[in-house]
Amino acid sequence: MIPKLIIADSEHNSNMFYAVGMLIPDDFVYLENNGKKIIYIDDLEYNRVKKEAKVDRVVCYSEYASGVDRDSFGNILTTILKDNKIKKVQVPGDFNMKYAKILLDDKIGIEVCEYIFQNREYKNNNEIEKIVEVQRVNEKVLNFVIEIIRKSRVRKDGKLSQKNKILTSEFIKNAINIEFLKNNCISDSDLSLIVSCGKDSADPHEEGRGPIFANKPIIIDLSPKSRTNRYYADMTRTIVKGKASLEMKKMYNAVLGAQTLALGEIKEGMRADSIHKKVQDYFESKGFKTEEKNGKIQGFFHSTGHGVGLDIHESPRINLNYKKKLKAGNVVTVEPGLYYPEIGGVRIEDLVVVTKTGCKNLTKFPKFLEIK
Amino acid sequence: MIPKLIIADSEHNSNMFYAVGMLIPDDFVYLENNGKKIIYIDDLEYNRVKKEAKVDRVVCYSEYASGVDRDSFGNILTTILKDNKIKKVQVPGDFNMKYAKILLDDKIGIEVCEYIFQNREYKNNNEIEKIVEVQRVNEKVLNFVIEIIRKSRVRKDGKLSQKNKILTSEFIKNAINIEFLKNNCISDSDLSLIVSCGKDSADPHEEGRGPIFANKPIIIDLSPKSRTNRYYADMTRTIVKGKASLEMKKMYNAVLGAQTLALGEIKEGMRADSIHKKVQDYFESKGFKTEEKNGKIQGFFHSTGHGVGLDIHESPRINLNYKKKLKAGNVVTVEPGLYYPEIGGVRIEDLVVVTKTGCKNLTKFPKFLEIK
Repeated sequence: MIPKLIIADSEHNSNMFYAVGMLIPDDFVYLENNGKKIIYIDDLEYNRVKKEAKVDRVVCYSEYASGVDRDSFGNILTTILKDNKIKKVQVPGDFNMKYAKILLDDKIGIEVCEYIFQNREYKNNNEIEKIVEVQRVNEKVLNFVIEIIRKSRVRKDGKLSQKNKILTSEFIKNAINIEFLKNNCISDSDLSLIVSCGKDSADPHEEGRGPIFANKPIIIDLSPKSRTNRYYADMTRTIVKGKASLEMKKMYNAVLGAQTLALGEIKEGMRADSIHKKVQDYFESKGFKTEEKNGKIQGFFHSTGHGVGLDIHESPRINLNYKKKLKAGNVVTVEPGLYYPEIGGVRIEDLVVVTKTGCKNLTKFPKFLEIK
Repeated sequence: MIPKLIIADSEHNSNMFYAVGMLIPDDFVYLENNGKKIIYIDDLEYNRVKKEAKVDRVVCYSEYASGVDRDSFGNILTTILKDNKIKKVQVPGDFNMKYAKILLDDKIGIEVCEYIFQNREYKNNNEIEKIVEVQRVNEKVLNFVIEIIRKSRVRKDGKLSQKNKILTSEFIKNAINIEFLKNNCISDSDLSLIVSCGKDSADPHEEGRGPIFANKPIIIDLSPKSRTNRYYADMTRTIVKGKASLEMKKMYNAVLGAQTLALGEIKEGMRADSIHKKVQDYFESKGFKTEEKNGKIQGFFHSTGHGVGLDIHESPRINLNYKKKLKAGNVVTVEPGLYYPEIGGVRIEDLVVVTKTGCKNLTKFPKFLEIK
């Protein structure tokens, strides 16, 4: 077994958090060698880390050098590897070049692993419980959003208003962020929280801006992270305040049908790309074409799903490029969608865990298109 | 000039945001060659990026390969460099090894630059305005916190309470996070928001937990980021609800004196390490020793300050390891502190911009120890 080496903090780097199980704000060294997990760290952090980290040993930098300034880190690192008689290491894909350079200059071999901890793909019961905990908050917050929209008034110009103020995407997203915080969660990317209405909803990357309208699709995509257990959840619903057009209803039913189909296909041993292909075929069979029109792609043109865990997007993926089989313990989203510039977009997303015989849906939120 | 190459997203990577001036959620390629700035990006992002990015040219991946899946990215990258006749690149220290490997395999030379954009150290007026905007929010939120503490009741056991509930560090931090969000800012690290009281305050790394007490030091350290302009601000105050002990008052005055001294020393051309040394000497002269006691360091043992900009901690630093001169446009914190386990901690932090003749304090919040 080639030793694994990570140098990062554990607040932003999910592999490091997975390795040590606690939050440490500054870069430190994690080494996994002959089945032993060792942390090398600044003396100031030693006591806290020694107490909390899920590793076999914690060593202070001062055992390797008197100072711990930038200049001496190279010496510390090369000494650690020399002491452990290591000539080659596995590192994660996001290993920083400034550290890699120290290894390369010292003629240490580097093998880059896109997934340094394969087990992250297979969640154990403890991890699934953590994800479910976040998903329950997610549902509470989605319910809160839908109540805001339900209680809003429809103005003559079709815009929604609350207490005589126009209801905007920005206002709702801010309210969502605050609700997440009140529930010990955080939506940590401004680009992945989506409340988009009307034309905006036809672009799945558009996070939404401006007034929310009655009788037009509103896509709400929420992916909070727990501030304590650090796992993510992910869910999307599409609603219309008032009356949905006939076209919109047809699109909604097709997306719901595609999701039901995908949920029925998912189980251990099923190839991810074949599930995606079936969703594509289903949409075609219902008359929803995917094609470029006026230089813009429309129809169904994103993945059917992606793994969720300590990262919001992680392995496995459910798309044509991912040619591997799903396995029990994979936690994946199932989120088909249709997007047409002249009508708008629909996406419905649930979070499921793959089992030997099928999948268990971790999402309890009901699916409906129109609200009063 | 060696071409600069960055591959990252611009939401999490501050160099990339500095380079392109807009938020892009997924990794893309930025190349600066012969004074020209070019973005190479996924076709789906092309229109938005073409419109908003502050670069000379935007090129779609599809010009280089028909698909944009993981497997072909290596081909895209090597083709880009070949087209531009590039044999060597400068990359930032956090350049990902998975991309570096593609370059190394292709025999492209890599020079790692800790600071790939030296200009980030010198803020122009536009950047200073953005930082001041965040700092004004920071002061508004600190005032909000102090009002909570001012209005709280002191229980018989010395704990503070609000509406018959014990006031805790966790409650206040959550309220702070919500106030930041209401003002379009975010405190994006759970480890850098500090509300620590009593013994906790004696550890500058402790973010604080449990009840807040009367007559004991409370350190409040706030470092929000603007969600739109992306700049940080940073400020710390130490207060006591009720009566501060004589020892605490002496410590507070020494820290205030040290800060006044440092603020007076800062100007273009002044060496950062010499400022830090003067602060150390000042504390010694006032009888506040820095030493290890029972295996724990006490006194003044962190930097006097650090640069603030698109990162909360960036160059320059004001400590003994940073042997360079300050320059006009540096925006730095000035935050001496004293920490003694038996008394507690005091830190006072302002944010200033270095000028040719001194420094301009960007912080307007008053300094006082006791509140009623």
